[in-house]
Amino acid sequence: MTKGNKFGTHRVIEPEGALPQPAWKIDNTMEIYDNEVLIDVDTLNIDAASMTQIKEQAGGDVEKIKARMKEIVAERGKHHNPETGSGGMLIGTVEQVGEKLTDRDLQPGDKIATLSSLSLTPLQIDEIKEVNTDTDQVKISGKAILFESALYSKLPEDMEDTLALAALDVAGAAAQTAKLVKPGDTVFIIGAGGKSGLLCLHEAKKRAGVSGKVIGISRSDAGCERIKETGLADVVLQGSANEPMNIFEMVEESTDGELCDVTINNVNVPDTEMGSILPTKDGGIVYFFSMATSFTKAALGAEGVGKDVNMIVGNGYTKNHADITLEILRENKTIREIFNRQYV
Amino acid sequence: MTKGNKFGTHRVIEPEGALPQPAWKIDNTMEIYDNEVLIDVDTLNIDAASMTQIKEQAGGDVEKIKARMKEIVAERGKHHNPETGSGGMLIGTVEQVGEKLTDRDLQPGDKIATLSSLSLTPLQIDEIKEVNTDTDQVKISGKAILFESALYSKLPEDMEDTLALAALDVAGAAAQTAKLVKPGDTVFIIGAGGKSGLLCLHEAKKRAGVSGKVIGISRSDAGCERIKETGLADVVLQGSANEPMNIFEMVEESTDGELCDVTINNVNVPDTEMGSILPTKDGGIVYFFSMATSFTKAALGAEGVGKDVNMIVGNGYTKNHADITLEILRENKTIREIFNRQYV
Ligand SMILES: NC(=O)c1ccc[n+]([C@@H]2O[C@H](COP(=O)([O-])OP(=O)(O)OC[C@H]3O[C@@H](n4cnc5c(N)ncnc54)[C@H](OP(=O)(O)O)[C@@H]3O)[C@@H](O)[C@H]2O)c1
Ligand SMILES: NC(=O)c1ccc[n+]([C@@H]2O[C@H](COP(=O)([O-])OP(=O)(O)OC[C@H]3O[C@@H](n4cnc5c(N)ncnc54)[C@H](OP(=O)(O)O)[C@@H]3O)[C@@H](O)[C@H]2O)c1
Repeated sequence: MTKGNKFGTHRVIEPEGALPQPAWKIDNTMEIYDNEVLIDVDTLNIDAASMTQIKEQAGGDVEKIKARMKEIVAERGKHHNPETGSGGMLIGTVEQVGEKLTDRDLQPGDKIATLSSLSLTPLQIDEIKEVNTDTDQVKISGKAILFESALYSKLPEDMEDTLALAALDVAGAAAQTAKLVKPGDTVFIIGAGGKSGLLCLHEAKKRAGVSGKVIGISRSDAGCERIKETGLADVVLQGSANEPMNIFEMVEESTDGELCDVTINNVNVPDTEMGSILPTKDGGIVYFFSMATSFTKAALGAEGVGKDVNMIVGNGYTKNHADITLEILRENKTIREIFNRQYV
Repeated sequence: MTKGNKFGTHRVIEPEGALPQPAWKIDNTMEIYDNEVLIDVDTLNIDAASMTQIKEQAGGDVEKIKARMKEIVAERGKHHNPETGSGGMLIGTVEQVGEKLTDRDLQPGDKIATLSSLSLTPLQIDEIKEVNTDTDQVKISGKAILFESALYSKLPEDMEDTLALAALDVAGAAAQTAKLVKPGDTVFIIGAGGKSGLLCLHEAKKRAGVSGKVIGISRSDAGCERIKETGLADVVLQGSANEPMNIFEMVEESTDGELCDVTINNVNVPDTEMGSILPTKDGGIVYFFSMATSFTKAALGAEGVGKDVNMIVGNGYTKNHADITLEILRENKTIREIFNRQYV
């Protein structure tokens, strides 16, 4: 087998010297290097922002969605939506393990989920069998390659694969919430009725504790209902993070003018930076998990209103993020039920 | 006088409900509301990323640069470059203070620099007198409006206005460096020979102390010379952050494989996210001050290579950032000299 680079740079076609994620195009030949893993792909879980964009562009037509997905992979060698810059993840079965990785606990036949984004994973789609635009899950037949530095998780035995996949897709958010929230904090979760939002609600409540306060917001009735169903939010607000002054006033009221220590942005639409910054107190933290976040809008927006907040880029990875996230589905029956109903 | 909103939303033309910074277009009528300040503008300091873009688009032709600047302001009511999303700042003389702000220490005739971005400041350009593409400073005659929540600093008596302006433009970076770096840290400053980079070098060295290590990198010979001139870097590297594997190997070597605790990105070009993430150790901090940072490239890039780093969006504002930054020019004669030579 040919020797490969740890980060997968041996597969980058253009631009030269780039890493696979930022690269425009990578080589998706399905013959592995010595430090790669070949996967027989079963399901793609397209990132929410990306699926929303593809769906809109296709006017909701399933055949057009399929065509656009194939086109992206043909153009770039990976499912890396050029409009949103985001990917998603996949589940599949290990088919072959490169000779340099034989000491890993990984055998042909193992069912795994990849935790590094589709935006850097060499992918080949033979057929798209089924597109579920509600869950963003797409059944395909095809192959993919895992690089040496890429993250993955063996799928647990005590839950369905699709349930695990739905949660693992947004694993970073809940694990980061667990790290950022301290006892007594007022935590504001934007998009709290969504997939990552619900998982964050659990960790926020657990970490802020009885002396803390958790505020959840969603735009739709259904989203607000899901927040209420969990019983984890002290305050449930209905409104759009695209209307910052409105959000600011609602949060000001629910916190007696104190505003929030930690704000977690879990939405799947653009232009919610100011709706996240304004309700956060000076010295507080804004964690942007949403991939629709604009760097300049956040940086200049905070400066523009003179807010001294710490704004964090939602790294999809943090240590033990897969374990922390799957554990939530074991600890919280309600969230597991909602996930089964909604995202599986 | 008509009553205005604290954040300046009364001037937003489109989209409705937005704040002035994210807004596409704002009202630049030069008649003030009760909580605004009218400024007679002297000099614009265009954000480095924005000026680079305008210069490139104009093929370096000064008349075309002027035309493009006027066009941006005519279209948006503010100097908010739609390509880079960034602004800059200005100096001018207070002409009129709204009746709600009369208790502020601000009088007609005071010379001030605005610290909130040009990307939210109502501006009217009557004439562009002089464009200096080396310093990014543009002499104009025109007017601007300061909102109630906007930041500004009276210009100090002990240094030239243009020197203060050059430093204040990038005030956030050095003040954040002072907050993030702890004694003993290994700090990596990318673009260390540039304006914000030099100021960060000073704070990094001061905070990391004798037990720490400061590594500075620049692409050009001139940049590296400036770093050496300060004597603040323990290691000076020459190379481009656009070549992440190369940077990674250089930093690996200069840190005996330990990598860095804090990486500060001060460049003015895109695609340097991976060059910042790879040389940072797990659990370390990457502070992106560069406005050319892509949110998704950072988030997915870190995840893609399995790096558990804390990535921070460079908020242009943090408490006392103006004072901290001007103090550097008093403490460090060499940096002051370089600034006088280079940016004034
Ligand atoms: N590495 C990473 O950082 C990473 C990894 C994976 C995913 N993500 C990102 O995480 C985000 C959320 O993903 P997800 O799977 O949790 O999405 P999701 O299930 O679709 O949830 C999004 C939620 O946002 C709410 N929402 C939408 N617009 C809103 C608005 N204007 N104001 C308030 N709430 C609003 C929606 O509520 P309503 O239905 O009530 O409107 C929905 O519940 C996406 O942007 C995705 O790209 C990031
Ligand atoms: N609110 C905020 O967060 C805020 C406010 C103001 C400014 N900014 C941003 O801060 C950044 C820096 O501003 P500045 O005024 O300090 O700019 P600057 O003086 O032009 O410095 C940029 C430096 O980056 C170096 N550089 C460029 N490309 C490089 C590469 N590929 N690898 C390594 N070094 C490279 C350059 O060095 P060589 O000449 O040697 O190539 C130069 O010294 C800009 O992107 C600006 O937009 C942010």
